[in-house]
Amino acid sequence: MAPTLEGRDDALLPDFPKGPLQAYRARASFSWKELLLFLEGEETVRFKRTVFSALENDPLFAQRGRADLPLERYRELTFLRCKRVFEYNFLSAEEMLQMPQKVSALVNCLGMYDWSLAVKYSLHMLIFSSAIYSLGSERHFKYIAKIFSMEIFGCFALTELSHGSNTKAIRTTAHYDPSSEEFIIHSPDFEASKFWVGNMGKTATHAVVFAQLHTPGGQCHGLHAFIVQIRDPKTLLPMPGVMVGDIGRKLGQNGLDNGFAMFHKVRISRQDLLNGVGDVTPEGTYVTPFKDDRQRFGASLGGLSFGRISIMGMSIVNLKLALCIAIRFSATRRQFGPANAEEIPILEYQTQQWRLLPYLAAAYALDHFCKSLFLDLVELQQGLKTGDRSARQAELGREIHALASAGKPLASWTAQQGIQECREACGGHGYLAMNRLGDLRDDNDPNCTYEGDNNVLLQQTSNYLLGLLEAGARDGARFESPVKTVDFLEAYPDILGQRFTCPSAGDSWDSLAPLAAYKWLICYLLRESDRKLNHERSSGSSDFDARNNAQVYHCRTLALAFMEFTVAQRFHDFTHHPSVPPPLRGVLGRLSALYTLWSLSSHVASLYQGGYFSGEHAGKMMEAAILDLCSQLKDDAVALVDVLAPPDFVLDAPIGKADGEVYQNLWAAVLQESQVLERASWWPEFSIKKPVIGSLKPKL
Amino acid sequence: MAPTLEGRDDALLPDFPKGPLQAYRARASFSWKELLLFLEGEETVRFKRTVFSALENDPLFAQRGRADLPLERYRELTFLRCKRVFEYNFLSAEEMLQMPQKVSALVNCLGMYDWSLAVKYSLHMLIFSSAIYSLGSERHFKYIAKIFSMEIFGCFALTELSHGSNTKAIRTTAHYDPSSEEFIIHSPDFEASKFWVGNMGKTATHAVVFAQLHTPGGQCHGLHAFIVQIRDPKTLLPMPGVMVGDIGRKLGQNGLDNGFAMFHKVRISRQDLLNGVGDVTPEGTYVTPFKDDRQRFGASLGGLSFGRISIMGMSIVNLKLALCIAIRFSATRRQFGPANAEEIPILEYQTQQWRLLPYLAAAYALDHFCKSLFLDLVELQQGLKTGDRSARQAELGREIHALASAGKPLASWTAQQGIQECREACGGHGYLAMNRLGDLRDDNDPNCTYEGDNNVLLQQTSNYLLGLLEAGARDGARFESPVKTVDFLEAYPDILGQRFTCPSAGDSWDSLAPLAAYKWLICYLLRESDRKLNHERSSGSSDFDARNNAQVYHCRTLALAFMEFTVAQRFHDFTHHPSVPPPLRGVLGRLSALYTLWSLSSHVASLYQGGYFSGEHAGKMMEAAILDLCSQLKDDAVALVDVLAPPDFVLDAPIGKADGEVYQNLWAAVLQESQVLERASWWPEFSIKKPVIGSLKPKL
Repeated sequence: MAPTLEGRDDALLPDFPKGPLQAYRARASFSWKELLLFLEGEETVRFKRTVFSALENDPLFAQRGRADLPLERYRELTFLRCKRVFEYNFLSAEEMLQMPQKVSALVNCLGMYDWSLAVKYSLHMLIFSSAIYSLGSERHFKYIAKIFSMEIFGCFALTELSHGSNTKAIRTTAHYDPSSEEFIIHSPDFEASKFWVGNMGKTATHAVVFAQLHTPGGQCHGLHAFIVQIRDPKTLLPMPGVMVGDIGRKLGQNGLDNGFAMFHKVRISRQDLLNGVGDVTPEGTYVTPFKDDRQRFGASLGGLSFGRISIMGMSIVNLKLALCIAIRFSATRRQFGPANAEEIPILEYQTQQWRLLPYLAAAYALDHFCKSLFLDLVELQQGLKTGDRSARQAELGREIHALASAGKPLASWTAQQGIQECREACGGHGYLAMNRLGDLRDDNDPNCTYEGDNNVLLQQTSNYLLGLLEAGARDGARFESPVKTVDFLEAYPDILGQRFTCPSAGDSWDSLAPLAAYKWLICYLLRESDRKLNHERSSGSSDFDARNNAQVYHCRTLALAFMEFTVAQRFHDFTHHPSVPPPLRGVLGRLSALYTLWSLSSHVASLYQGGYFSGEHAGKMMEAAILDLCSQLKDDAVALVDVLAPPDFVLDAPIGKADGEVYQNLWAAVLQESQVLERASWWPEFSIKKPVIGSLKPKL
Repeated sequence: MAPTLEGRDDALLPDFPKGPLQAYRARASFSWKELLLFLEGEETVRFKRTVFSALENDPLFAQRGRADLPLERYRELTFLRCKRVFEYNFLSAEEMLQMPQKVSALVNCLGMYDWSLAVKYSLHMLIFSSAIYSLGSERHFKYIAKIFSMEIFGCFALTELSHGSNTKAIRTTAHYDPSSEEFIIHSPDFEASKFWVGNMGKTATHAVVFAQLHTPGGQCHGLHAFIVQIRDPKTLLPMPGVMVGDIGRKLGQNGLDNGFAMFHKVRISRQDLLNGVGDVTPEGTYVTPFKDDRQRFGASLGGLSFGRISIMGMSIVNLKLALCIAIRFSATRRQFGPANAEEIPILEYQTQQWRLLPYLAAAYALDHFCKSLFLDLVELQQGLKTGDRSARQAELGREIHALASAGKPLASWTAQQGIQECREACGGHGYLAMNRLGDLRDDNDPNCTYEGDNNVLLQQTSNYLLGLLEAGARDGARFESPVKTVDFLEAYPDILGQRFTCPSAGDSWDSLAPLAAYKWLICYLLRESDRKLNHERSSGSSDFDARNNAQVYHCRTLALAFMEFTVAQRFHDFTHHPSVPPPLRGVLGRLSALYTLWSLSSHVASLYQGGYFSGEHAGKMMEAAILDLCSQLKDDAVALVDVLAPPDFVLDAPIGKADGEVYQNLWAAVLQESQVLERASWWPEFSIKKPVIGSLKPKL
């Protein structure tokens, strides 16, 4: 006889300990176990638990206290843990190729524990290897085996001290010398040093280095990637001609060694050009299957969507962890109360609900979007592997690029703001380092600027949308795209003519009305951005100036609104699908509605300005609906974070523990720290060496 | 012959070194020296330079690298520096009393160097001593002399582990024992331990402890303050019955030792009750000059405005420092550019201007407001000292309380968001710890939650405004207040009837039109908040529930809008005063207009919703005016931060140095760090001890 559903759940997902959170858990409208299994599936849940359990039972992972560790020791621990992940081999090379979602799950599990570890591991195992795999050819596959056995350790070196966003202006050079069949990698000056490269500071032996390829005769063929050995694997000492070092402490992720490198005429074999987009013959002739520089450049940076979607995932993990901590704290922390009555949990306050619950909805909505976009990307990569050169494949690439380019900003900013709100919502206790909200914020922060600064990236998305509009006007091309995110724009003129009509009093405002408002908003912002661009151009601005001057309040807002809508629409479709088990429909529908309304609420000015909203009622209804949803969701909030929360060991925040014993846990953690009650070693500086007031006289 | 103005300026304010920032400096519309002297006055400028110069020339202040220091060493350094400030005695005790602005200037100078130092110094010298001075009486003045000579070291112990915002619910007790004429200070359990107390962790010998005062017979007289010795000054060991320790690492300000204390029936002399608001006779009778508990409670916490205004000042300093770094970086960092031309400074981009320049305007506007509110507070305290019990004095107290209670949230949030924007606007280099934006953010962060959580504090201000509205409706009382911030509300019904009329095309939108819009907005939010409260009450809510349910979109927004308006109005009045030198009027007027418009732009939805705005043009005009002002101010931006910037040594950010040599400074600073080029000490962990892939098998 098969075990019952309940029996199976209990083994895999044991109940939480009883305690102060019990009251909220008992009031939840759904079973957290059912929602977790519905969202992730038993196999993924089991896999994650396996990873968590391995970390929890391994003494190497016992010490936390990131900020208290000296940098050198934190780096060492992070490296040792990375090596230990190889020993666990949670996924074989074959599983990694066949089940990319499990790779995501693994990285996110490691990241929940510590992003320094997850990023260190990913840069070597995923970014470095996939750069070689996708930009190189069979002659480079020997490196992949060495990556998987950790014979070498890798990094991805694109940005330079003085160039980040503008990658085309990278100044490192690679001159081909036919006499020795070698490339000469060279940094013209320190401003062209590779800089910020993760793993380069102390550990990498090899780097994928982007450099301007020159062939004899002086012709430059643009940016190409090369495999350059930077350290000797036997000693970890730098190779001759390579000046490589560590850029120092960052705001976060300090277990990771970000580094710099300058190359002084470093010679590498001709074979170490990653020749997927262009090659040089032994004699020094440049050959490429691509028609022009622009196309080749695009292909050589084609892996960016993967990085951006990964960053979305990282951001969402951070937001989830912060919410687990802040919501569990809010459900147990009591402050003030009705006259002559017990104090009430701060989660009962409207303000606290409004500060936290929309971010909880956002975490669910963004998580669903990120996973589904990842599946789209997997489809795209399947096409690349099978050599699909169809128009649909090209369109799919453009659409995913547009979605990843705005999805990363939306997710990283939502996480940044959400974590900050969580930190403040926990008051002073949120400012205590042991409660981890600071680490989450600091580790999340680079998500806003690396792999493309958020504001710069958003231009990719608005350019995509404006390009479609122009193509429609020029050629009568239809608005349609492989994953259908822009198809609604086919009704562009009709939508622009629509006006908001209040749902009748009896109707609850589910997400259909705000989704319709979003469609109008995007059409409006698209039209306004297009007009603004044309106005700038017709006023004599260059294309460069016109685009720059149409960002604020126009293209930038357009890209963000489009992204919010796309996330909201996908989450709406998902939560309203017939496959959703009936007991989960209520809570998922409320999350979907809250995310949509709350996101839309930042655009109310535009809805009025453009005439979609008129009268006081429209805006007030939206506010009332948001507050109402918050109030409806507050009794589900603890169960909703129970779905997201890793085990206490991984969450690692006394005020966020599953038992909800906030003060006991906090007090115990404080007393367990080093030298808590001891007097300071420098006590005589106060007790004996007294200052002589005014004994030093300052002078200007 | 007196030195010329120019000669004097050059000695006090030498020119900045030539370099990449020269181009912007040459384009500035005004002289930074003239603006600095106009805003601060020569005496303050000279005083600040004296302090900065003393720190720069003292080896004790040479080491920075806060995050790299072990906690114990950072605390020691901070204590030693605090002691050194006593030795410098920049201000005598008499000067401190007579020139409170100079005290502010001193604290801000120390804070620019390191907030841990400034806060440690302030908690002892200002907060501890002024608590004794204002809550106690002559019998306590003996302590003040010991504070100034550092014979004792003090802290202010109000919050407990489980109570912060709700101070009335503090649970520490002080039972009076007439047999020995002593109070028995006691913590009923660890949840009632004093917690978060700055200086308590390692250094304080004495604490002002807030406890519930009980007299024989069991009567509780509410919260009172007591002086409790917690450590022996001769040894820094805890006193019997006192369990005192350190709460551990925080997100920032880690040079400061925040601590906790539990009291086990600690006996203190009857004389050590700070008896300004109530006293106990030797026999055990409670006596007070106040009529009721509420009044007494208010008086005992009356010093809060001072703390809140100080926090405003701290926040503004942080914002200024971040802007100095980000704007100098933006003026030298070049990225992208027109086709076939040199790359342009990122400050030339509309997006970058819009991200940074409104915060620059905010720094100027908030700084002016904070200084002027401080002068109002000085007036209030003069009245207290001279025993003024007039109605005006009471009204002044209420008004300042309302302004400080919303001013702290506005300033701390503006700084929080502004620093984050600065950090992101500097891209990766802003994420490097040495560039200090992380420290600024982390040190600023508690400003959002201590001395009253921002969201909770805002209720004080909305309650004040709603109270005036109610008093008007009830008694026909006029809207007027000592510093006149609410006087415009006398025209409340008329203002509500106003509608926005577009200035004619030729007129530039100076700050008059947005100030008028703000007045309407505040009246609208006041009316809506009042209606919402009444609706809640008439629907059967208790007053407690009604107030809680009227916060979001109502009272909270009202308090913030009122505060923004008050800041904007004062800055407008200041910048448009005839005493402003003509060469400075242009730039100050633009800053004033930009701050007002930008702040107002977050309320456009309400302006439309309530009918003040109608049609597309109103909103578009505002957007265009903001962007236009940003564009006009970008050539002044470097000179404007030159006015705010402390010397490079104090600013302490390679990318923010006055010479603008961003890459040289950054590169030099990276290479100067410890073990930059050395291989890691744990290199054999990679080179020799190779992992055996899959040698460990994880199990669930």
